[in-house]
Amino acid sequence: METSIQDLASGVDTVWVLLCAALVFFMEGGFAFLEAGFIRAKNSMNIVMKVFTDSTVGMLSYWAVGFGIMYGLDRAGLFGATGFFVQGNLDHIQLRIPIYAYWIFQAAFAIAMASIVSGAVAERMKFGPYIIYTALAAGLIYPIAGHWVWGVGGWLGKLGMLDFAGSAVVHAVGGWSALAAALVLGPRTGKYNDDGTMNVLPAHNLHLAFLGTFILWFGWFGFNPGSSLSGLDMNIARIALTTNLAAAAGGTMGILFTMFKYGKADPSMAMNSALAGLAAITGGTAFVSPVGAVIIGGIAGVLVVLAVGVIDRMKADDPVGAIAVHGVNGTWGAVAVGLFAQKGGLLYGGGTNLLAVQVLGVLSVSVFAFAATYLIFSALKNTVGIRVSAQVEFEGLDLNEHGIPAYSGLVSTPLYDVEENPAHVLAGLREQGTLSQ
Amino acid sequence: METSIQDLASGVDTVWVLLCAALVFFMEGGFAFLEAGFIRAKNSMNIVMKVFTDSTVGMLSYWAVGFGIMYGLDRAGLFGATGFFVQGNLDHIQLRIPIYAYWIFQAAFAIAMASIVSGAVAERMKFGPYIIYTALAAGLIYPIAGHWVWGVGGWLGKLGMLDFAGSAVVHAVGGWSALAAALVLGPRTGKYNDDGTMNVLPAHNLHLAFLGTFILWFGWFGFNPGSSLSGLDMNIARIALTTNLAAAAGGTMGILFTMFKYGKADPSMAMNSALAGLAAITGGTAFVSPVGAVIIGGIAGVLVVLAVGVIDRMKADDPVGAIAVHGVNGTWGAVAVGLFAQKGGLLYGGGTNLLAVQVLGVLSVSVFAFAATYLIFSALKNTVGIRVSAQVEFEGLDLNEHGIPAYSGLVSTPLYDVEENPAHVLAGLREQGTLSQ
Amino acid sequence: METSIQDLASGVDTVWVLLCAALVFFMEGGFAFLEAGFIRAKNSMNIVMKVFTDSTVGMLSYWAVGFGIMYGLDRAGLFGATGFFVQGNLDHIQLRIPIYAYWIFQAAFAIAMASIVSGAVAERMKFGPYIIYTALAAGLIYPIAGHWVWGVGGWLGKLGMLDFAGSAVVHAVGGWSALAAALVLGPRTGKYNDDGTMNVLPAHNLHLAFLGTFILWFGWFGFNPGSSLSGLDMNIARIALTTNLAAAAGGTMGILFTMFKYGKADPSMAMNSALAGLAAITGGTAFVSPVGAVIIGGIAGVLVVLAVGVIDRMKADDPVGAIAVHGVNGTWGAVAVGLFAQKGGLLYGGGTNLLAVQVLGVLSVSVFAFAATYLIFSALKNTVGIRVSAQVEFEGLDLNEHGIPAYSGLVSTPLYDVEENPAHVLAGLREQGTLSQ
Repeated sequence: METSIQDLASGVDTVWVLLCAALVFFMEGGFAFLEAGFIRAKNSMNIVMKVFTDSTVGMLSYWAVGFGIMYGLDRAGLFGATGFFVQGNLDHIQLRIPIYAYWIFQAAFAIAMASIVSGAVAERMKFGPYIIYTALAAGLIYPIAGHWVWGVGGWLGKLGMLDFAGSAVVHAVGGWSALAAALVLGPRTGKYNDDGTMNVLPAHNLHLAFLGTFILWFGWFGFNPGSSLSGLDMNIARIALTTNLAAAAGGTMGILFTMFKYGKADPSMAMNSALAGLAAITGGTAFVSPVGAVIIGGIAGVLVVLAVGVIDRMKADDPVGAIAVHGVNGTWGAVAVGLFAQKGGLLYGGGTNLLAVQVLGVLSVSVFAFAATYLIFSALKNTVGIRVSAQVEFEGLDLNEHGIPAYSGLVSTPLYDVEENPAHVLAGLREQGTLSQ
Repeated sequence: METSIQDLASGVDTVWVLLCAALVFFMEGGFAFLEAGFIRAKNSMNIVMKVFTDSTVGMLSYWAVGFGIMYGLDRAGLFGATGFFVQGNLDHIQLRIPIYAYWIFQAAFAIAMASIVSGAVAERMKFGPYIIYTALAAGLIYPIAGHWVWGVGGWLGKLGMLDFAGSAVVHAVGGWSALAAALVLGPRTGKYNDDGTMNVLPAHNLHLAFLGTFILWFGWFGFNPGSSLSGLDMNIARIALTTNLAAAAGGTMGILFTMFKYGKADPSMAMNSALAGLAAITGGTAFVSPVGAVIIGGIAGVLVVLAVGVIDRMKADDPVGAIAVHGVNGTWGAVAVGLFAQKGGLLYGGGTNLLAVQVLGVLSVSVFAFAATYLIFSALKNTVGIRVSAQVEFEGLDLNEHGIPAYSGLVSTPLYDVEENPAHVLAGLREQGTLSQ
Repeated sequence: METSIQDLASGVDTVWVLLCAALVFFMEGGFAFLEAGFIRAKNSMNIVMKVFTDSTVGMLSYWAVGFGIMYGLDRAGLFGATGFFVQGNLDHIQLRIPIYAYWIFQAAFAIAMASIVSGAVAERMKFGPYIIYTALAAGLIYPIAGHWVWGVGGWLGKLGMLDFAGSAVVHAVGGWSALAAALVLGPRTGKYNDDGTMNVLPAHNLHLAFLGTFILWFGWFGFNPGSSLSGLDMNIARIALTTNLAAAAGGTMGILFTMFKYGKADPSMAMNSALAGLAAITGGTAFVSPVGAVIIGGIAGVLVVLAVGVIDRMKADDPVGAIAVHGVNGTWGAVAVGLFAQKGGLLYGGGTNLLAVQVLGVLSVSVFAFAATYLIFSALKNTVGIRVSAQVEFEGLDLNEHGIPAYSGLVSTPLYDVEENPAHVLAGLREQGTLSQ
């Protein structure tokens, strides 16, 4: 077998993109456990099932329809109209990797956007209509917004908008869709009081949430660097560096800011601050300096804490903070490109051109995503209904929608025959309080 | 240092195979948590310890013996007889990657096969004899079946059987071994009633099971594409695509079919349906079209739900569904190659030759695996014994086999001094019901 | 775009190092869950927050200061003094990959060292001073020891010390720092009795600990092979092989040795034995034979069990076994290089030169790390204080330091209206015992 330089280049790029796609796909597990951990046990299986629906139904939808709308031949700068089922001539994309490798990487992004929304509708949305929504999110909403910025001929891309791995396209689109969904759906019963105060509905398992956080951060090693689509683009090293510094700065600020504000380092905020740093750096990761990344991420880490309060005052009940993390900080990240990009950023003497395009761009995709989700949720509300009954909400969605609780018999203790067993086991049990339960 | 084209080609391939091997190895964690989540808490540490034994004892066994039997110089098409301890002349394998890279990738497959069996024997099999079984599974059963199909000179490979990443070699062999093991071992106490009805022994932690599912799916990004053994084989893009579409189709059908059948989307079935899609596509992933993959995976997603019922009627008690996922759908996947392979498949005008070979092949390895495991389990039963006592089964294997429960003090609440602590903490605790417990 | 052989070589190496860096970074999740699972629930969120602090604050510290001290231009063989913020001329490192790719890989190592210490101070150390310590560990202690062995001009490296991926530099440094920390901090209340006996403070969630173990082992596929810094170095195949064989041998010995010693295979020991095998092989993974790796790992698997007892007799209370795993077996691994290295090892006729250097080297970095941590902890103790009050220790660090428990309402059962719900759900609940709770 003769191997050419070109074969090798395609090989390196394809290996890179496929392995990064695996990392991005694994983020679905991250979303599932982050969200499940942040809510009450009785609804926690339902939210994982919703994320799993993104991964399955959403993936099929992006295959059949979404990819064509996003990357097919352009119509008027607004959407693509070929390439459904990843078929037909797609040469206009000009790839060095196989189109199927490109597809799987993009598909993992599409389902991530849907999974951002799943968090904001936790603990009260019916499962059936969610299936419809995720098919539309991955098949229509995300692809249209994505086409504008990343599609060949998309109107925002033509204006010069920069959004390397999707602060706007993925995170702002997901986060502002989440806001629309939460508003149409209404808050959870018992969240907001008539007197303007509100209640904490506690996170049932912060280890599960932290597992989600570590998986998401790990996945971002694929999300951002993989968006280069080439292992020969040596900028991937900078991308890996800025991504991680922004996450570290976000998390550091989340820890320090909550220690300063509440006297205690808050775990939920620490997680969301690091994720906010990641959402914010995603747009500019390839264009900013390490110091720029630290500033972008550090601001994100404070912004997310402040945003949670604002969103709650709007009575947009977002049990996991998806709007604050992805909406607010995806938007901040897209704008930050206009400030911190070493070529064209305001702070590097690039003037306001890029900044203006970035603001226009992120506003456009955000308004579109908000409106589209608002319409779809309203239509679903007026037809099949989107909200479980008060009774079901009280009892929990897991039993009612899936017939089973997430946990069963966690504390049941087997009877234990004292006579028959070795002393060291019994001693251990006694110490653990297991025997006496 | 002079670098040649050949050096680069070897480098790309080796990087690819080693990273895919890491993904496949991580599937051990997937098996462990999927299985532990599906069973009762009191036996859940024991099953993780068994999967850990696959990863440790099983890996050493595959190093010392299994690899040589599978890939050593052929004897009569039936087994290899050189290469023990990965030593000696192994040039007949004709690799572009180092033999040690090949070994680690194959070793991760061998222990996966053993881990499939561990699920079916959950909640009642002794730990000691399991160590012996896993050494024999990774060292003898899997390697012999594997040699037939993948070894140089293996009789099924010579007949033209196609099994790209092992629907037959890994999944059918693992799944039908699991059936044999479950039959010799007998059902869990309390599972089947005398009147023919049966009881649900509940999954103790579906989040743990879903964690396993996400890890397994993630790992399949290495399992199937990595089986190319080359990052320069551009078919790896198709493999990644068909693998994921089959999983998505399987999961989608599992969700929709249980909604249709039971009125509720069933989490356990959703997981197993996606895994069934993965097990089924594994054999043909490199040979079928995307549409073919969706059909293969979609059928698997329904087949697994139906199979669970049939297997229960046989009183083969399989607490995690390993037989339905891996046995039934590994077999389906091997047969499906004969139908859907774009070269040689019946539906593409290839006639029945390939189909016949596939049926013969998967039957052969399945019957062999079933018989070998049946014999080994029977021999163990009649010597050291394989089943824990009724008393131990009642108390749980974790305390009896390992001296410790999986969970301890999960709900103990620290005493809390109301006078000494800030109001906001107490308010939070009150809300969470922690204070009053 | 013209691609040269040199471009391709850099590309393969960079892809390799960045993906391995992702695996090593993910080990932070591994440390977090291993440690959290091994301790009591009431302190388990605090330890995860500490590891998260390593990942965030520690990473920033290594960026600003640590990297320069470790890899900057040498001063007297003792430390580097350029390259802070990864800036300035760093040509002396002579890399084929971008400096930023090198940095992210090294940063993941630095925070791993800090996370080793976090385990030994579990359940009693204040959060605030830990932030200071982790900044100093990743910014000063680890980089100085690392410079000695791996920095250009470091005195131990010049003597010929071999420590491929850091048995000494990461594991011994981390483990002996952990010992110093545990000694200054003192044991947990209730651990040691006046009569010389001690109590078991039970692991609250062994599944969480096993999750950590599987993640750590998975991450080691990046830790050791990635330390080649080149995907074109075909020795990476051997490294992957020896790493896994040592882990398998360690885990196997942990299982068998505890079965022999206690009559039961101990899960905590099984995990720590495999990790001990990994810590021990890390130094010599590139230099020893497969059989050598099995012996090194097997000895580590026994050594860790014995060491836990010795360390407890010193009343160094290490809730997770970090000293035994990383300190003892990092040291053993560094010494083992002098015995088993195929070039220069005593057992291969290399005489005692290498062995002497290895012993000197690991002693030097260990003594330095122990002393530095002892000093820092003593200084913190005498200023801000390092230990929570007895009251806080009794109530748990999670509520007091972070205002929230790790778990909430895990066993709360939703009220359930018998009249209104389908029979099959109720039947399921009855079976699971959920209804009657």
